Amino acid sequence: MSRGKFTVAGGGPVGALLAILLGRHGYEVGLYEGRPDSRKTSIYQGRSINIALSDRGWHSLEQIGIGADAKSEAIPMFHRAIHGIDGELSALPYGKEWNAIWSVSRSGINQQLLDIADQEAGIETHFEHWLMDVDFETARTVFQVNREHEVTVDADYLFAADGANSKVRRLAHNLPRFSYSQTYMPQSYIELHIPANADGSHKIEKNALHIWPRKDFMLIALPNTDGTFTCTLFLNHSGEPSFESLQERAAVEAFFESNFADAMDYLENPVDTFMEKTASPLFLVQVFPWSFNRKVGLIGDAAHAIVPFYGQGMNCGFEDCAELNRLIETHDHDWDAIFPAYENARKPNGDAIAELSKRNFVEMSDLSGDRRFQIRKMIEAKFSARYPGLWTPLYSMVTFSPEVPYAEALRVGDEQNRVMEKIMGLPGIENDWDKQYVMDQLHALAKASFGERQ
Amino acid sequence: MSRGKFTVAGGGPVGALLAILLGRHGYEVGLYEGRPDSRKTSIYQGRSINIALSDRGWHSLEQIGIGADAKSEAIPMFHRAIHGIDGELSALPYGKEWNAIWSVSRSGINQQLLDIADQEAGIETHFEHWLMDVDFETARTVFQVNREHEVTVDADYLFAADGANSKVRRLAHNLPRFSYSQTYMPQSYIELHIPANADGSHKIEKNALHIWPRKDFMLIALPNTDGTFTCTLFLNHSGEPSFESLQERAAVEAFFESNFADAMDYLENPVDTFMEKTASPLFLVQVFPWSFNRKVGLIGDAAHAIVPFYGQGMNCGFEDCAELNRLIETHDHDWDAIFPAYENARKPNGDAIAELSKRNFVEMSDLSGDRRFQIRKMIEAKFSARYPGLWTPLYSMVTFSPEVPYAEALRVGDEQNRVMEKIMGLPGIENDWDKQYVMDQLHALAKASFGERQ
Repeated sequence: MSRGKFTVAGGGPVGALLAILLGRHGYEVGLYEGRPDSRKTSIYQGRSINIALSDRGWHSLEQIGIGADAKSEAIPMFHRAIHGIDGELSALPYGKEWNAIWSVSRSGINQQLLDIADQEAGIETHFEHWLMDVDFETARTVFQVNREHEVTVDADYLFAADGANSKVRRLAHNLPRFSYSQTYMPQSYIELHIPANADGSHKIEKNALHIWPRKDFMLIALPNTDGTFTCTLFLNHSGEPSFESLQERAAVEAFFESNFADAMDYLENPVDTFMEKTASPLFLVQVFPWSFNRKVGLIGDAAHAIVPFYGQGMNCGFEDCAELNRLIETHDHDWDAIFPAYENARKPNGDAIAELSKRNFVEMSDLSGDRRFQIRKMIEAKFSARYPGLWTPLYSMVTFSPEVPYAEALRVGDEQNRVMEKIMGLPGIENDWDKQYVMDQLHALAKASFGERQ
Repeated sequence: MSRGKFTVAGGGPVGALLAILLGRHGYEVGLYEGRPDSRKTSIYQGRSINIALSDRGWHSLEQIGIGADAKSEAIPMFHRAIHGIDGELSALPYGKEWNAIWSVSRSGINQQLLDIADQEAGIETHFEHWLMDVDFETARTVFQVNREHEVTVDADYLFAADGANSKVRRLAHNLPRFSYSQTYMPQSYIELHIPANADGSHKIEKNALHIWPRKDFMLIALPNTDGTFTCTLFLNHSGEPSFESLQERAAVEAFFESNFADAMDYLENPVDTFMEKTASPLFLVQVFPWSFNRKVGLIGDAAHAIVPFYGQGMNCGFEDCAELNRLIETHDHDWDAIFPAYENARKPNGDAIAELSKRNFVEMSDLSGDRRFQIRKMIEAKFSARYPGLWTPLYSMVTFSPEVPYAEALRVGDEQNRVMEKIMGLPGIENDWDKQYVMDQLHALAKASFGERQ
């Protein structure tokens, strides 16, 4: 017998995963997606769009009982491949030698999860159903079907997994005491493309995330299994240089030639693409509460759209699902308890990864820049290798330590900053950074801040 | 000849003042208000609602050429009258003995400004015109008139002075790259009432802002010219005690009796009012930009709704008007220059007073509480009296120093905090606070932070 009926709005990776876990807990689930089913149409069969998945994502999938299947289609990236402006290449590891982040096809993982959902009892999937309205008291929804007629769907509960531009969340703006913010970043982006070699191999190093860091802007490239790379150019919306200032073809050519000379050998018509495409904005969404009347909940990007600079968007959404999965058991299907426990557990972590992601643009786009910044990273890496119980670098806490909540990573990272500012304030640090007294002083400060954990 | 045509949406104090200054600069102005004209109807002739006006507000009115008229209907409040829980009364001055904040009738000042607007050439006022739609490219607006028909209004520019719930701002949510946030405070509020004596005199001290500070909640009372006081109870929305938790009449009576015993002699049916009224929420709104396509601008609460704990809402809106007044001259009516200069000048100050106002709830509601807090205030007052060029208390900068922008007051106030934390960290400070060495040490720290300004 069904434990109750859920509507899940949004059939992306988070919505599909949520439907699966609810189905496995004995609920009847209707999964509604506005777009056509990508498994039956060609809309996703053009160029690949990939996203980063890392330990939090894999860990969450495992907790929900979805095994290593998804990993078979993913490409591990063990380091950043930094392309200097002079064409020089350098490798910056992500963590220990076995630590990797994974490039996965967004549509691939989505289709895998939808296939699993279709095999579960109690889950019905509906495509080309556009959400039009929500009754936040009853969880009743109205969808427009195939752009023609409307259907009304009754359920006991509704979860909105309808993404960064969530319609459910926008409808909630009118609810009492709903706090919301939507904040645009100075940068916008366009996607570019590196084709495969004739034999299907990758034109540049496959197992790396490629970065052309140019301080105020950057180009990145993530590998696809078909030998191509999906590239993203992040550039200011206005100012100099920017999508707004680069209007003339000659100026765009000069911009690419002077900043991405080595990439011009590989990129497919970057100037044409730049001239033709409209840049997409980057924005953050933060709201509270994440649930209404113990009937309607928000999850994934619908609850916390973040910027992509930490590669954590889908990871965070999958963590939301894993937390819900746990709470359904802890509170034995009592949704009056689950909704508040869920939003109170996840909101601080959503805010923390939003903040961390925003900050990481500076770090990523300046990777080959500032000498003091490089020295600081080298001191940290050396110290962490020697005292792993006392110091995990922030990037590793966020990316490779699913047991550390984002909010805790942010807090510890800020404390590490304060410690490292003192170290970087030592006179002569730029020459002495590798000397023993620096390690000793850092050890004393770290011990005072973090205790001796091992 | 007209320099161009403006639509001003919203006929409150800020909208009326804006219409006047635009009219005086030679523009044709249509002022549109959704509510009926309060000068002709009785809706405002019931109980008075008053608000605080202080030096920034008066200074801004003077800059626009509106004299001391408004002050004749205002009541100066020279100090806070603190009502202890035991009924004990104490006075806490706002600044120097001549420093006052002023209690003004909101409808009174609104009507005065509307009267002035009606006498200016080129200004037309329209009431019962509800704004329905805005074309942000052309500044064309659509109003519903008397809840019957619609009119379309063409103009060269539109300014939205339509308040904290601004319809224009909400329509702008759909514009590209518009960042917005609306944040609810934990507190809500209801208004209560102290009637006048039979002879029209005030039942409690007239020239004071009365505060019953109870840490997590507070009651305040501002005098009206008719002998009454308008009181506001600020109390958490949920938790204990809260508007949500106080549902039973007996509990509400006990709440008032135990917390506001002395006020029960004066308040008019506070328990009935509490039981009948729905508490209003408190929220902050922050957005950017404040203008669109060099055609449409936001001003006053529509651009920056803040909480009332610093008494600066209307002052800040009037300052917006004074800044615009100045910029029209500086940029000689070039609105391509005025809009960006206006939003860049005012946005940091709007954000600063939002932050200051939010923080001030703690300060106001804990006035009679923490001993260390009292000691800190006494040290600051003594030091400021001795070295006025080195230290102006934050409250005085915000309230009595219109030449200091809000953003500067916030910055200096934060630096003062850091200095005072060092002083309050001195061992024995609770006994020694009045000793010379404390003054000496504070002088050394303040000089290092702020230089010797006089």
